[in-house]
Amino acid sequence: MIFSSKLIEDAVREFSRLPGIGRKTALRMVLHLLKLEQPEVTAFTEALSRMRSEIRFCRDCHNVSDGEVCGICANPARNRSQVCVVENIRDVIAIESTQQYNGLYHVLGGMLSPLDGIGPEQLFIASLHDRVVRQETGELIMALSPTIEGDTTVYYIARQLKDLPVKITTIARGIAFGGELEYADEMTLARSIAKRLPVENYVKVEQ
Amino acid sequence: MIFSSKLIEDAVREFSRLPGIGRKTALRMVLHLLKLEQPEVTAFTEALSRMRSEIRFCRDCHNVSDGEVCGICANPARNRSQVCVVENIRDVIAIESTQQYNGLYHVLGGMLSPLDGIGPEQLFIASLHDRVVRQETGELIMALSPTIEGDTTVYYIARQLKDLPVKITTIARGIAFGGELEYADEMTLARSIAKRLPVENYVKVEQ
Repeated sequence: MIFSSKLIEDAVREFSRLPGIGRKTALRMVLHLLKLEQPEVTAFTEALSRMRSEIRFCRDCHNVSDGEVCGICANPARNRSQVCVVENIRDVIAIESTQQYNGLYHVLGGMLSPLDGIGPEQLFIASLHDRVVRQETGELIMALSPTIEGDTTVYYIARQLKDLPVKITTIARGIAFGGELEYADEMTLARSIAKRLPVENYVKVEQ
Repeated sequence: MIFSSKLIEDAVREFSRLPGIGRKTALRMVLHLLKLEQPEVTAFTEALSRMRSEIRFCRDCHNVSDGEVCGICANPARNRSQVCVVENIRDVIAIESTQQYNGLYHVLGGMLSPLDGIGPEQLFIASLHDRVVRQETGELIMALSPTIEGDTTVYYIARQLKDLPVKITTIARGIAFGGELEYADEMTLARSIAKRLPVENYVKVEQ
């Protein structure tokens, strides 16, 4: 694409660096910003630069935070004896958005993957150990993706913490609600049969 | 979606105001910015705010411009006797990107549409008239969309300028390259038959 304005060209180039944004989409966004009033564009750019410069990571759970301790860890209404272990902050947002969980989190910052050079030192596993000891955590809920890396990470953490009086559970795997049995992958289907539940335990999720 | 950080929430809300960006895509962009170094985020936000605050519109052709006169109008290598009339700056970028046109442009800022309350006063038609007189334009190439509004606008402008010594042409309509005849709409097909060309005039576009 050829622009007659360097200002437009720079803005399009910057936008097209974002994930999933090509030149045409970037141009559409730039032309949209051009139609907005100056204060609206300022609000947009300031929200982004403020976010980047002021964001911190929670001292306890490593989630993104507006202060030294994140809003979840600082909330006295949360159940402090449960800690849900997740890979990244996207998972925290996904679980929070279900509004079904009232415990705390622990963001590992990734999953063990020796092939990619990610060992225990690259993740917040030591701080998880310290935290379980210090906060006398009753239950760790492992909410990691059901992949080889996820399973390895769960296994590793379980071994590291095996001498501590903490119960370690993992979120249920199975056929997703609304998912069709015949399209489920073999691993999920096999696990969901192996981990079958008696029908009286079957809790219906309200629509 | 529930965020535990107000900074993240504000940034996601601002991003999701952009056209075609939902909350999930906005979050992906915000998390991407979070992974970048501070100077890269500053480059991004500054390119956008600079673009919005410094952009101007060309005195002559109303295209976006970095100065009083745009780079196209100011370029002495362009053919000043041809002016291509377009609806908006997106069309200028599209035609420039073909690298096949070396004349000037005139951005109308819309097309005549009485039903939407857009009359000649809302468009840069008077300035087009002045410009044709002042710059002694030899040819006006009407490159408007082949819609009722486009045709009305072409007809109106042609009538306004009928006493001036300027040749008025329109870009060719027809079946697009690579387009299948059977899927072309009736109007395009009818026009392309009515405006058929002798085979010796048929210029092959190089691949």
